[in-house]
Amino acid sequence: MTGAQLATNRQWVLASRPQGRLKSTDFAYQEQPFDLGALGAGQVALRNRLFMTGPVTRKFMDPPGPMNRRALPLGEPLMATVGAEVVASNHPDFHPGMLVEANGRWEDYSLLDPTRAGIQPMAEGMTLREMLGGLSGNSLTAYYGIFDVGQAKPGETVVVSAGAGSVGMMACQFARIAGCRVVGIAGGRAKCDWLTGELKLDGAIDYKGEDVSARLAELCPNGVDVYFDNVGGEITQAVIDNIATYGRVAVCGQVSSYDGGAAPGPRDMMKVVYWSVRIEGFRVASYAERHAETRQQIKRWFDEGKLIAQTDIRSGFSRLPEAFMSLFEGSNVGSLLVENDI
Amino acid sequence: MTGAQLATNRQWVLASRPQGRLKSTDFAYQEQPFDLGALGAGQVALRNRLFMTGPVTRKFMDPPGPMNRRALPLGEPLMATVGAEVVASNHPDFHPGMLVEANGRWEDYSLLDPTRAGIQPMAEGMTLREMLGGLSGNSLTAYYGIFDVGQAKPGETVVVSAGAGSVGMMACQFARIAGCRVVGIAGGRAKCDWLTGELKLDGAIDYKGEDVSARLAELCPNGVDVYFDNVGGEITQAVIDNIATYGRVAVCGQVSSYDGGAAPGPRDMMKVVYWSVRIEGFRVASYAERHAETRQQIKRWFDEGKLIAQTDIRSGFSRLPEAFMSLFEGSNVGSLLVENDI
Repeated sequence: MTGAQLATNRQWVLASRPQGRLKSTDFAYQEQPFDLGALGAGQVALRNRLFMTGPVTRKFMDPPGPMNRRALPLGEPLMATVGAEVVASNHPDFHPGMLVEANGRWEDYSLLDPTRAGIQPMAEGMTLREMLGGLSGNSLTAYYGIFDVGQAKPGETVVVSAGAGSVGMMACQFARIAGCRVVGIAGGRAKCDWLTGELKLDGAIDYKGEDVSARLAELCPNGVDVYFDNVGGEITQAVIDNIATYGRVAVCGQVSSYDGGAAPGPRDMMKVVYWSVRIEGFRVASYAERHAETRQQIKRWFDEGKLIAQTDIRSGFSRLPEAFMSLFEGSNVGSLLVENDI
Repeated sequence: MTGAQLATNRQWVLASRPQGRLKSTDFAYQEQPFDLGALGAGQVALRNRLFMTGPVTRKFMDPPGPMNRRALPLGEPLMATVGAEVVASNHPDFHPGMLVEANGRWEDYSLLDPTRAGIQPMAEGMTLREMLGGLSGNSLTAYYGIFDVGQAKPGETVVVSAGAGSVGMMACQFARIAGCRVVGIAGGRAKCDWLTGELKLDGAIDYKGEDVSARLAELCPNGVDVYFDNVGGEITQAVIDNIATYGRVAVCGQVSSYDGGAAPGPRDMMKVVYWSVRIEGFRVASYAERHAETRQQIKRWFDEGKLIAQTDIRSGFSRLPEAFMSLFEGSNVGSLLVENDI
């Protein structure tokens, strides 16, 4: 690169640490000059086209502490998985024009270190929407949770909370591919109908309108063998109350706690002893060396028509905070993406 | 057997459902005629010589319910692991004079079904005290918890709560045999000194006199890789606060909850997610087909001087309730046995 090339870089930054529910004043819009001349050794410059922000970003808005070591400093742009175009590169693996996925930020342009930001070239023949919709880290997370942590086996009963969410909808489908009976838990009749209709699950429970524990007892008469837990709290307790002997709980997230507070474990650990239950937390990063191979498998299933990806796409950089906040109202089905307007 | 042979059968039965802490009036003494003529097909008659009553018996004194399906009916003798002599048998594997271990009851004589009561012949050359002290179900439980559930590996740090109890002292020693750094948690200086002195542990924490979490941070600077949990509650929370990434919690029991109430799981399940923790409850009965082989291994370690068994032996049938209640005051070291006086 020769000389400085200045563009306007729009950003959404953390304006204040949220108290409980998110408010629009927790976010601040700002414009910064973007200087390609600042591209460091080994770095890559991205133009961000598509943003996918998961609920866990909410945790990083809280103050730093032992449980929040990756807390976002005030004034810094929020985090998102981005689908982006390489606009400049000091790294041999990336060149301008390439489309990539990265752990990026709520801004038009980013200078990132490929290793730290997990920049990955997009799979051949895929659009950014497909990549972030069906082959993203969300799908990888769902895959490892069902097959590796959950050890779902044919004929077993699998329950997925936030079953219509970006991770949950994939977990539901992987469990079906594994030959399991699958029950999704989601908020509202429309989502539940989508789970049984589009995703062809064996059952769906509307936690906003039904008694989750009673419905689980009906739909899972032999107990829940594998529970993919995205939410924690009362819903998870209801599943634990209906767990099968040797049941496995793959703990992916605890969205019920992200708006403040903490989601505790089972109410009575003797249940875990008597029923020989395994509860295991996991992070997708632990499986990084298998991501490429896993993506291939997931792509094959898409190609064979065994999987569908549902995306809720919104347009405009200005709508990022609003889209993110809507994740906590449970209004979206599938992955929530925001398309940039540059 | 020909004709009825009547003897006096002393029993301790459940007199009332305990409210919180055990009271001596929760137990009632009675004498019944013991009729060998009532020995059914396939049954074995035992004369009980030695009783070992674990804390979990407390749970079965509570009213029946979904979490207490094996609740003891009022008026029935309490449960114990017994070391006994066969006095009559209608079963081909057992004959009068054999010494056995069984899931028995607080009484002089019992008529039991060998399969349901898990009657096992004593290992050759062992006394009943050795059998119940070092080769009992407690030792098997500790073995599976450390090696199978905990997957303890050389160089890892293992923490055992109720480390001076009948299961805990064996778990501590198995972890040492596995090549781990081992820290025991126990109540009182004497027990802690015994853990570091006699059992040669790397550290011991007196939960009655020390800040468990602060001491864990000191003694386990790289975190706790394996936690053998006998107690639950605040002590377990302190270990979770100090768990290592990919830490394993083998949940054996929750003695902190046996006097009423329930011991809940971790305060914040995001800890379990971020640290990729596995929490697994287990029951020794799940490993029944490996018991014989496991006992051989444990016996070899005793013979090689790698293990010691500590027993706290009390004398007299009349002292059974008092001995049992003392388990909840934490006054005993090792297995608490009561020797019968017939």
